[in-house]
Amino acid sequence: MNSRIKWLRNQLLSLKLEGIIISNPNNIRYLTGLSEEGILIIAPKENIFVTDSRYIESVNKKLTIDDEIVAYDSRNLNKYDYEAIFMNTENVGFEEKYVTYENYKKYLQTYQVNFVETEGLVENQRIIKDEEEIKNIKEACSITDKAFEYIIRNIKTGMTEKEIAFEIEKFMIFNGADDLAFDIIVAFGENTSMPHYSPTDRIIQKGDIIQFDIGCKYNGYCSDMSRVVFVEEVKEEYKEIYNFVLQEQKRLSEALKDGANIKTVIKDRETEYRLKNYEIMHAFGHGVGLDIHELPLLKSNQDNILKENSVIAIEPGVYIPGKFGIRIEDTYLVGKNFCESITKSKKECTVIKLA
Amino acid sequence: MNSRIKWLRNQLLSLKLEGIIISNPNNIRYLTGLSEEGILIIAPKENIFVTDSRYIESVNKKLTIDDEIVAYDSRNLNKYDYEAIFMNTENVGFEEKYVTYENYKKYLQTYQVNFVETEGLVENQRIIKDEEEIKNIKEACSITDKAFEYIIRNIKTGMTEKEIAFEIEKFMIFNGADDLAFDIIVAFGENTSMPHYSPTDRIIQKGDIIQFDIGCKYNGYCSDMSRVVFVEEVKEEYKEIYNFVLQEQKRLSEALKDGANIKTVIKDRETEYRLKNYEIMHAFGHGVGLDIHELPLLKSNQDNILKENSVIAIEPGVYIPGKFGIRIEDTYLVGKNFCESITKSKKECTVIKLA
Repeated sequence: MNSRIKWLRNQLLSLKLEGIIISNPNNIRYLTGLSEEGILIIAPKENIFVTDSRYIESVNKKLTIDDEIVAYDSRNLNKYDYEAIFMNTENVGFEEKYVTYENYKKYLQTYQVNFVETEGLVENQRIIKDEEEIKNIKEACSITDKAFEYIIRNIKTGMTEKEIAFEIEKFMIFNGADDLAFDIIVAFGENTSMPHYSPTDRIIQKGDIIQFDIGCKYNGYCSDMSRVVFVEEVKEEYKEIYNFVLQEQKRLSEALKDGANIKTVIKDRETEYRLKNYEIMHAFGHGVGLDIHELPLLKSNQDNILKENSVIAIEPGVYIPGKFGIRIEDTYLVGKNFCESITKSKKECTVIKLA
Repeated sequence: MNSRIKWLRNQLLSLKLEGIIISNPNNIRYLTGLSEEGILIIAPKENIFVTDSRYIESVNKKLTIDDEIVAYDSRNLNKYDYEAIFMNTENVGFEEKYVTYENYKKYLQTYQVNFVETEGLVENQRIIKDEEEIKNIKEACSITDKAFEYIIRNIKTGMTEKEIAFEIEKFMIFNGADDLAFDIIVAFGENTSMPHYSPTDRIIQKGDIIQFDIGCKYNGYCSDMSRVVFVEEVKEEYKEIYNFVLQEQKRLSEALKDGANIKTVIKDRETEYRLKNYEIMHAFGHGVGLDIHELPLLKSNQDNILKENSVIAIEPGVYIPGKFGIRIEDTYLVGKNFCESITKSKKECTVIKLA
């Protein structure tokens, strides 16, 4: 049995639970390495992965005897097979943050046990990354840096937001990424004022600001980076905000180290925003791992202590509605005394010339 | 107020519900046209869309006075504002198929009412498409046909599954698609035996079978089409199964018309599969609309009557584990007397030459 499932079984003991059903796909991947659809059942006597006929062949290819996981095609399990899984069992954990109300009711019927909320048990464990996970995130970040370097050398007159987003995706996929980590954001000029935005056919113009928010996956692990560059010239109105955002990111990365209280750190930054009369449009950052947004959340309502070997994206932004916005973001590895940027693309105010 | 929200309000009346919270993003899009994150609250006195600071600017740009929807940034609502929404209200509907158990409990706390399951109220209404929706699906299908025609003319020696998938994506995005409808499947040779598969760096070879499963979105509406083509030659073992799958699709499309009972139609096809000793690895099809997989489901456990102006993908497939698989799929519009294929790419056994 692998060490993560052993860890989970120990947790169940201390929580006085006799089993758990894991439904969140990235929790299943974390615990088993499997990315196929299904549910993982940690039962008193065995570890079971219930999938369906579409996936059973590839699941059985991946599992080895050491995994101590038995895979079933759900078609081959009947009512009594399901009831037998937790026979003579009282309390079983479930993932209330992931399971729908409808499926919760189905679980009750199918397994005939008492289901207990587990408050993000696996998600909380995923905050601290091991060596292998950090290696994967570093590789995803390295591909992201290369994609950014490639694109800012290849922006040409007449290009649209969509075309640039597509070139970034292509670069990532053909330079080792499994996939994008999220839909790429490329926004020009006034479109940068909306922090969540989908690229359009808007054509690049002299004087534009370009906002990039890009990331990819490597072995399932994500990277996340945002940059702005300026086309041909930097308008005066952009400079002050650019420098403010850059300075805020620096202050956050200095404060967010092992032992830091997230609430305290973020409250300080909120005060700074308020002094400047800038609206806070989104969180200052988030954990990065198998999910692009995972724990910890960098918001002032999070009274949590940051720990070494967490991986976080720090992304302060300022948005002037209807005019423009600037967000700078890097993926960081939290260390004992500092927070190390894993994405390494340059952050000096960059002006590109249209070829 | 638009006709869909009026319809929903009438439904609530007949269900004796005084309001409903809509959380499923595609249900929100169907009812309001909004694609931003948030929840739609149909309350006794008004229609409310609660979003957050990231989206409020774009939501307010889209809504007009005729929509009769008030948008709020959730930061500006406090405990008492939420309680006031359903003040003096007893029974409010919620989407138990979408809302997590955790959020269900939060709803109870926040709104202080009794929440009632609504059994896919909006999803069921979405089965029958109106003129505008059919127009959008037809356009998505037309882009898909063009992408398929383009790719089979442009497959070259040395290409990988990933490269071909990428060329299809690029074609779709630059020929009017908003986005892909799902991750494109391109599988060569033995990789076709797994119905759910992600393209790899496997290089194309003479004698390969190529399975395509492709689709895109247009104005949010999906298309879905699968084809197989053969590289340089058609191996004898492929021919029988190819013809079987093609014939099964034809029989399904003839039987699946207005008034047909899905259970009866599918049970007939299952018998045919059993006679041939072919395993049934997945459903014979599914509804297509704002979601790539929506109602109705074409499975023998669905005792439902098919209705005119439903849009369905019909996708019989046969898979020989470890060897190969063949799936043929089209998107169809269900009519009074027939089921009309909206994807129109040719289905004769196609052999391509590697350039």
